[in-house]
Amino acid sequence: MSTDSYPELAEAVAGVRLVDHHVHSCLAQPVDLPAFGDLLTESDRPAPAGTSPFDSQVAFAVRRHCAPLLGLDPHAPIEEYVAARAALRTDEVDRRLLGAAGVDRWLIDTGFRGDALVDLQAFGARVPGAYVEEVVRLETVLEQVARDGDAAGLEERFRTALCTAAGGAAGLKSVIAYRYGFEFDPSRPSAAEIRTASSRWLTRLDRDDAAARVDDPVLLRMLLWYGVDTGLPLQLHAGFGDPDLDLRRCDPLLLAAWLRLVEPSGSNVMLLHCYPFHRQAGFLAQAFPHVYLDVGLAVNYTGAASPAVLAEALELAPFGKVLYSSDAWGPAELHLLGAVLWRHGMTEVLTRWVRAGEWSVADAIRVARLIGRDNAERVYGGRRG
Amino acid sequence: MSTDSYPELAEAVAGVRLVDHHVHSCLAQPVDLPAFGDLLTESDRPAPAGTSPFDSQVAFAVRRHCAPLLGLDPHAPIEEYVAARAALRTDEVDRRLLGAAGVDRWLIDTGFRGDALVDLQAFGARVPGAYVEEVVRLETVLEQVARDGDAAGLEERFRTALCTAAGGAAGLKSVIAYRYGFEFDPSRPSAAEIRTASSRWLTRLDRDDAAARVDDPVLLRMLLWYGVDTGLPLQLHAGFGDPDLDLRRCDPLLLAAWLRLVEPSGSNVMLLHCYPFHRQAGFLAQAFPHVYLDVGLAVNYTGAASPAVLAEALELAPFGKVLYSSDAWGPAELHLLGAVLWRHGMTEVLTRWVRAGEWSVADAIRVARLIGRDNAERVYGGRRG
Amino acid sequence: MSTDSYPELAEAVAGVRLVDHHVHSCLAQPVDLPAFGDLLTESDRPAPAGTSPFDSQVAFAVRRHCAPLLGLDPHAPIEEYVAARAALRTDEVDRRLLGAAGVDRWLIDTGFRGDALVDLQAFGARVPGAYVEEVVRLETVLEQVARDGDAAGLEERFRTALCTAAGGAAGLKSVIAYRYGFEFDPSRPSAAEIRTASSRWLTRLDRDDAAARVDDPVLLRMLLWYGVDTGLPLQLHAGFGDPDLDLRRCDPLLLAAWLRLVEPSGSNVMLLHCYPFHRQAGFLAQAFPHVYLDVGLAVNYTGAASPAVLAEALELAPFGKVLYSSDAWGPAELHLLGAVLWRHGMTEVLTRWVRAGEWSVADAIRVARLIGRDNAERVYGGRRG
Repeated sequence: MSTDSYPELAEAVAGVRLVDHHVHSCLAQPVDLPAFGDLLTESDRPAPAGTSPFDSQVAFAVRRHCAPLLGLDPHAPIEEYVAARAALRTDEVDRRLLGAAGVDRWLIDTGFRGDALVDLQAFGARVPGAYVEEVVRLETVLEQVARDGDAAGLEERFRTALCTAAGGAAGLKSVIAYRYGFEFDPSRPSAAEIRTASSRWLTRLDRDDAAARVDDPVLLRMLLWYGVDTGLPLQLHAGFGDPDLDLRRCDPLLLAAWLRLVEPSGSNVMLLHCYPFHRQAGFLAQAFPHVYLDVGLAVNYTGAASPAVLAEALELAPFGKVLYSSDAWGPAELHLLGAVLWRHGMTEVLTRWVRAGEWSVADAIRVARLIGRDNAERVYGGRRG
Repeated sequence: MSTDSYPELAEAVAGVRLVDHHVHSCLAQPVDLPAFGDLLTESDRPAPAGTSPFDSQVAFAVRRHCAPLLGLDPHAPIEEYVAARAALRTDEVDRRLLGAAGVDRWLIDTGFRGDALVDLQAFGARVPGAYVEEVVRLETVLEQVARDGDAAGLEERFRTALCTAAGGAAGLKSVIAYRYGFEFDPSRPSAAEIRTASSRWLTRLDRDDAAARVDDPVLLRMLLWYGVDTGLPLQLHAGFGDPDLDLRRCDPLLLAAWLRLVEPSGSNVMLLHCYPFHRQAGFLAQAFPHVYLDVGLAVNYTGAASPAVLAEALELAPFGKVLYSSDAWGPAELHLLGAVLWRHGMTEVLTRWVRAGEWSVADAIRVARLIGRDNAERVYGGRRG
Repeated sequence: MSTDSYPELAEAVAGVRLVDHHVHSCLAQPVDLPAFGDLLTESDRPAPAGTSPFDSQVAFAVRRHCAPLLGLDPHAPIEEYVAARAALRTDEVDRRLLGAAGVDRWLIDTGFRGDALVDLQAFGARVPGAYVEEVVRLETVLEQVARDGDAAGLEERFRTALCTAAGGAAGLKSVIAYRYGFEFDPSRPSAAEIRTASSRWLTRLDRDDAAARVDDPVLLRMLLWYGVDTGLPLQLHAGFGDPDLDLRRCDPLLLAAWLRLVEPSGSNVMLLHCYPFHRQAGFLAQAFPHVYLDVGLAVNYTGAASPAVLAEALELAPFGKVLYSSDAWGPAELHLLGAVLWRHGMTEVLTRWVRAGEWSVADAIRVARLIGRDNAERVYGGRRG
């Protein structure tokens, strides 16, 4: 077995100016050690007694890759890391970490707990020279207009609000995976179905504020179909996430019938994360021209083990159908790690294929650029930021 | 870590005279560049604008392994490759590619779009010295006798036709995965059920030629059970394929109840491809004496990434239960790649296990021969070609 | 690529004194070659004619790792191995193999075919200095009291028996995966439901001794909930096993709703094996504080291929939530192999991550100790043996 390395390949992958096509903003406030632990897991529960929230792939990756950017040795203890972080202004931490990611276009989903994060303008100020654009979350648009009128007018209010929101957006996002799962009736809901569902939802909402989080499958389908109508790329959370979701119902294969119905519209569907169903997503990306995927969140959370996930995402999926994202939310460490781990993992995987004689270096570099940047540029089109 | 290689292992794997136990014939006509792109994907849709159908593992593998056989450098641009191909007679291309596969027994499924392919005799002429045998597709046998009489006689017409077809066949094949999926009633359908289903199907067929493609679950089950009766190995498409199929319903675990009912018959069931459910298929092959598997199609389509798939297929499955196939259809590149990628992948995986001290070289060579040849020879028995 | 190795890492992993948190006892009787073959597969069926039951990862691992302990060369032919085994007293074989495992605490599930195995005291005599504790199988406790009274008293009889059995136990075990699968109503069954189910079961049992194997979903749920009440760690078989089970119904994701209901109790749920759903189990371990996993059985059965399985189990799961087990039943070879393959696989995987610069050696050693020992010590608490 050859153990050659290919410096031009490693350099090219290191040098790709990434488009992070699905990401969130970064924290508005500094964090202490316990809060930092809470931010490095998809769980909303505390780690059990006797275990550390920092004994995980993602936390090990923070210590490895972020510590040097704060002047520490790689693998520095997490207490030292958080202390070094706290010794700096939050925006300075962000500037170092975001800057080192090598991303020059950020498509930011603004629909999740935006109150804890800096707004797009402040995010932009932390990444000088980069484009920052919005991805509009469909459920949030609906929830924002829920109480602005009666049930009969809800569909129209949503349409109007979406029209406004979509105007400046790079893409749309749905979290139907969280709210209901993918086992939904794939057809477009009728006006009558929507009226009934609107009425049911608003009645619940009058009684219970928690109901403001829309989970009615008819309304969620309505959002999807109006999203498709805009012609914007429609991002769908798929696969793992926080304990809210029923992972069985987030297998993207469950979307097959809906994808067939969407296909004639010409709108693109971007399957996000997909783990542990990323091979299944790769099949969909090969089968259907309008289906794309990334393994964003999974790369961050699988850390040192992520090269295997990246390789699996490149089994069936055509290379023009795979994108880069970090799905970072909150600490800028996650925005950086997405990029660093992707570069390391892609270099490892592509080097292996070149070393085995299966790929040329030139092809490997070209594919890295497609995935890291060019595919997103093509699908999302001209910058709006 | 040792980086030793084992030349005797590599040579032995390179030298296995393969049995390709599930394959189709090769193209009757030359292909131009767009047509060649269409043939290197399981999708029947065009690649979206801005992407290339040749940016995929299988197309990279064509450029790597087939180009030298047409006098080009490895990784030659696809345009050059297709031009070099077009400069030769099609049968000369076939002869070079098929010859280099090192296969001396081909079991050819003749049931899919045979009009676009050369017949078995012409295929045989391209592979002098090799045995060429037929695998009969059950659905095709039924469809061919559908209109030869009334619904009441359909079962009997099929039985007679199958008896004739099976006489010269090495095995049978079912595509119930495509037509209905594996969530079918596992029991043998009664004569009354079959009469009702026959009547329903022939009535539809009178109105609509497209209905000639049998998708009635009762009739599909009838085919399976008559297939089992013949005692011939029964091949089942499982796992991924073209966009027609609902991949959720092609998980071979869904066959468990049916496999239990078939077990007493003594007939063998060959699970084809199985990806991304090949680990599940490995479990079935360990659990049930009459279940075998291959990862044929998956190896071609995962290309440089295929060693991981081959290794996963060797986790739970007994080594006497795994077979080689290419599932190639159309361009002879696919017939060659199945073999080349299998040899490369097996060499890589077996070398890793030997290098780790886990396997002996002698065992590795013996297992490669089992999978590449001996298991198929045992299951399919004496040549009929 | 570096090919460095890290002797201190390899030595530390080799030196971890393991806790085998789910295992069975070892054989009471010597075995001949055919019987040994039957014991090296999860199948209860004979290997088909022409194949060898020793052509499998687990049997190759026996020849590799156990042969030297009986004075043979690694990879010795299986016939020689079984002859060497037969030339020794069974307890001497056990002593050598169990001793070489480096396990100093064994948690033994006594609920499966205990008649073929030595009892806990005899097992303990074979592993001097090690602690041997019992894991009580809930279904066995119920089956043992089934005929001791009428249906109305069954729940109470079980409660009393469980109270006694749990008193001396390190943990509990359920095989609902085998008996019914995980698609059960997650709620606690009512007393009325239990009475009805008890009556139904005992009536069946009067007619048919085979019915003594409880498979009623209401009764199985009753067992789970009483198990949770004890506060002891509750082990659940998940994923593959023998042909009895319907693997589709053993995906631990199907437990999600039940896990949510159990969470407030504070009792821990230990998902055993999980293959091929170990990535799904890793998600559950990250999402829920009370969920733990191992890939015990899978490591033995995937042999040389097991490092990939071990690495996948360390993708999403926090390192404080992964445990070691062998799930060995019968021949002491399986007790040894669990440990040897875990040490080899962990060394390989951790070395890869250190070599890639992603992990420090110190972290790698610490994580190996967590998984091999410390997590189990924390979850199962003080020794009772």
